[in-house]
Amino acid sequence: MRGFSVFQRVSRAFHDYPSLSKLLVVFTVSGGGLVAYAETNSVNGAQIINSSEVESKKKKVVVLGTGWAGTSFLRNLKDPSYEVSVVSPRNYFAFTPLLPSVTCGTVEARSIVEPIRNIVRKKSMDVRFCEAECIKIDVENKKVYCRSNQNNNLDGEEDFVVDYDYLVIAIGANVNTFNTPGVLENCHFLKEVEDAQKIRRTVIDCFERASLPTISDEEKKRILHFAVVGGGPTGVEFAAELHDFVNEDLVKIYPGVKDLVKITLLEAGDHILNMFDKRITAFAEEKFQREGTRPVIKDFMKQIGQTNRRALATDEWLRVQGCGNVYALGDCATINQRKVMEDISAIFSKADKDNSGTLTVKEFQEVIDDICERYPQVELYLKNKQMGNIADLLKVAEGDKAKESIEMNIEQFKTALSEVDSQMKNLPATAQVAAQQGVYLAKCFNRMEESEKNPEGPMRFRGSGRHRFRPFRYKHLGQFAPLGGEETAAQLPGDWVSIGRSSQWLWYSVYASKQVSWRNRALVVSDWGRRFIFGRDSSRI
Amino acid sequence: MRGFSVFQRVSRAFHDYPSLSKLLVVFTVSGGGLVAYAETNSVNGAQIINSSEVESKKKKVVVLGTGWAGTSFLRNLKDPSYEVSVVSPRNYFAFTPLLPSVTCGTVEARSIVEPIRNIVRKKSMDVRFCEAECIKIDVENKKVYCRSNQNNNLDGEEDFVVDYDYLVIAIGANVNTFNTPGVLENCHFLKEVEDAQKIRRTVIDCFERASLPTISDEEKKRILHFAVVGGGPTGVEFAAELHDFVNEDLVKIYPGVKDLVKITLLEAGDHILNMFDKRITAFAEEKFQREGTRPVIKDFMKQIGQTNRRALATDEWLRVQGCGNVYALGDCATINQRKVMEDISAIFSKADKDNSGTLTVKEFQEVIDDICERYPQVELYLKNKQMGNIADLLKVAEGDKAKESIEMNIEQFKTALSEVDSQMKNLPATAQVAAQQGVYLAKCFNRMEESEKNPEGPMRFRGSGRHRFRPFRYKHLGQFAPLGGEETAAQLPGDWVSIGRSSQWLWYSVYASKQVSWRNRALVVSDWGRRFIFGRDSSRI
Repeated sequence: MRGFSVFQRVSRAFHDYPSLSKLLVVFTVSGGGLVAYAETNSVNGAQIINSSEVESKKKKVVVLGTGWAGTSFLRNLKDPSYEVSVVSPRNYFAFTPLLPSVTCGTVEARSIVEPIRNIVRKKSMDVRFCEAECIKIDVENKKVYCRSNQNNNLDGEEDFVVDYDYLVIAIGANVNTFNTPGVLENCHFLKEVEDAQKIRRTVIDCFERASLPTISDEEKKRILHFAVVGGGPTGVEFAAELHDFVNEDLVKIYPGVKDLVKITLLEAGDHILNMFDKRITAFAEEKFQREGTRPVIKDFMKQIGQTNRRALATDEWLRVQGCGNVYALGDCATINQRKVMEDISAIFSKADKDNSGTLTVKEFQEVIDDICERYPQVELYLKNKQMGNIADLLKVAEGDKAKESIEMNIEQFKTALSEVDSQMKNLPATAQVAAQQGVYLAKCFNRMEESEKNPEGPMRFRGSGRHRFRPFRYKHLGQFAPLGGEETAAQLPGDWVSIGRSSQWLWYSVYASKQVSWRNRALVVSDWGRRFIFGRDSSRI
Repeated sequence: MRGFSVFQRVSRAFHDYPSLSKLLVVFTVSGGGLVAYAETNSVNGAQIINSSEVESKKKKVVVLGTGWAGTSFLRNLKDPSYEVSVVSPRNYFAFTPLLPSVTCGTVEARSIVEPIRNIVRKKSMDVRFCEAECIKIDVENKKVYCRSNQNNNLDGEEDFVVDYDYLVIAIGANVNTFNTPGVLENCHFLKEVEDAQKIRRTVIDCFERASLPTISDEEKKRILHFAVVGGGPTGVEFAAELHDFVNEDLVKIYPGVKDLVKITLLEAGDHILNMFDKRITAFAEEKFQREGTRPVIKDFMKQIGQTNRRALATDEWLRVQGCGNVYALGDCATINQRKVMEDISAIFSKADKDNSGTLTVKEFQEVIDDICERYPQVELYLKNKQMGNIADLLKVAEGDKAKESIEMNIEQFKTALSEVDSQMKNLPATAQVAAQQGVYLAKCFNRMEESEKNPEGPMRFRGSGRHRFRPFRYKHLGQFAPLGGEETAAQLPGDWVSIGRSSQWLWYSVYASKQVSWRNRALVVSDWGRRFIFGRDSSRI
């Protein structure tokens, strides 16, 4: 925290003397170094900057995070008029759906990660990566303060500052313990690659420990009882992987303990693999709220006046509410969806073209596409109420009149749409959502100038003209929960069905995600081959 | 240390009441558990014991360590009349010659390890493995005190005791810092799999750090300067691997820093790859002494009166001097070779069959094979002095007489052999020596009963009859130092030559070492394939 007063001084210096931001200013602070760095003037950056004249006019995009959201944004960003800096404490992207497989050695950790620099070097634009953590966002001066996360035998910590024109926040969220006492101290989480590696070592540890001569049968049973909390896809898959590991490999080398192994899956709901559907259809923020916003985000939210929330609130265009040119996506953000009722008068008067004070079905139909695009809850409401079209909605208010003769005033219109907002839902904190947001935002960035001239979004009901972009819409492409062996439960759009495991991988790698590189594909398949021939390794490394 | 008083009490209990050793005695000590365990009565062991009647007569062999020596002993032990317990804090054997390849990701750590339990389950004899560290050897009561090395979220430490009839100590040595200040704090060692993984992460760390925007060119050069201490095969190979890693993979993804990388190899001798030969031909204990004997060994040495030494002294049969039924091999031990001069009178009188007080060439020739087998320095001396046979040796003392007429008394005999002991040398602390010792000792154990009736060793000069076994003789099979790319320097019996790298692996896996399982062979080759196609991974995991 000591550093923050220094940041403030630095920020003030840049603020008071704007010319300083063009210079390389070096501060030396006793007990730690802080270097304020104006990127445009650098010649020492990791990426070679070709022409400083041209470069200095480029818009600076800073991306925080290399998870699903950040990486998918980076992969899809194509406009060479940006100068991109990616800041993340991890120099790789991890294909997290395979983490449960890593816990038992079915797939190696290294096979599911892709170095960010492999992605960076393939881009035909200025991108550079910094392995560092963002420790402060300075909205006023458009600066991001970063700290190298290396605390090895090299010198102590070093801080640096990166300027931005656009900031993309995709740093993820902490794990949600639902405030259950003891969870943090006694449980393993499965969120990062390191978690999976740790679980793998711990499982082997348990078997080694249960094989020690002094351990009683009672104690062995305790040691070999694995409890998995959460009956969602990840929990089910881990339990299934562990079951396979025990039955296919460990029984051979720990013959004395195989009958004592017990795997328990704990789920608060009625049945497993239920949760995800629930989330999608009726996501309740009270229940599935994103937990433990990181300190840097909390501080940032204070700056922009988002004090009552747990995650960064954005609008439907992923723009952080309360400040300009900052975007947030993935697990660290929630989309604060616009209510129809907030805009109901504006909608009515936009739709009532002839200013008659009443709305005909014809008038309504002319704006309905824009309404559905701007307020997706309308479409969902119609679908859930099994209404064929918007006329059915008006009928509810107007009774059984012939469609053409329906005409309603503002009060009737409010009544007709009064329940629509109940269909609003938050998106789940999944890889799929994050990846789609990344793609969406990159496409917006790629068309930033073009959309200025030719806006492509829906009509602005409160203002004039159209929105520059269509709002983000999530398309649920399905979900998998491998059940051990060759079986996989797949929730394709619709319900859960059973498919083969290879089909799952095919689906992952070909259709669902462009995040899987050919390298990852080949490595995972070769890991499967190795496991098929030699079994999983039980060495404690 | 608190536990030791408990050990003493336990030992005394077993000593005073021998019948106790047939019972399972459980002590509860506040603040930690100690369980004294009599193995023969166990039904809870990891290995199922088939018939307790037969089993109780089996000789108990306890092996400490799963490195080259311990594993090679275990692999070659075949006599089913033993009941074997292997105690080691690592549940795998690591093929250490490939450690330099692991440091840069040419080969994965997992590919060069073999779970000990894979070896155990293939043995048609009673073997069980305990993942624990030996913390005390009680010579008097033939017990080994062990402690589980798990300090994760399970209960605290647990101790147990294993009885032995034969004890095989193969726990290796600590790294030798030659007392150089700062080495322990600031250097990486390359001895264990974990070391290699840590070096790998550190190399990536350095590149990431050098790519941070605040780092000056000066500082970048400092960060990217890798110094390798030791110009032996491991040092040379690591430097070569690092060079390849930088030039084949890292230049592509860290283009800004590639020209700043510097690799320095430091060697005290005249030139690199020199050391090994020197060690073999004139191994000086002062210089290459085995460093930092582990505490358990120090304590053990105190018990048996070996107080002046740094490593366990054994005789040429690998038996620890000063106690019975304990063997030591690999890096933790040195063979205390018998001097000819110590036994010169006994040799003379054994050779002087007719008790004439003089020795003819004929008489000498009858015992020369036994002498050469018992005192290998004699053979080496003859070879180095380019003497064809033993008669030449006697000529030195007797001048140019005709061979048949040479006849010498004890004083002349002493003079003739006076310089022979200068040829004594210690074996280097290498994997090859450890592996050969393991094979040797296992073969002795396999023929233990047979050799009682038909001793196969050389004549006992001080006693009567013959030694049960031939003493251990090291056969140098060559040494490799891969030089990067496809080149490898190979020291085959003779001098260093250059061979291809695949030939090296072939040599390793087919000829030089039975320690390489088919699994390891396939995994390493598949790692090479992966690297060939995708390059080495630069993710920091």
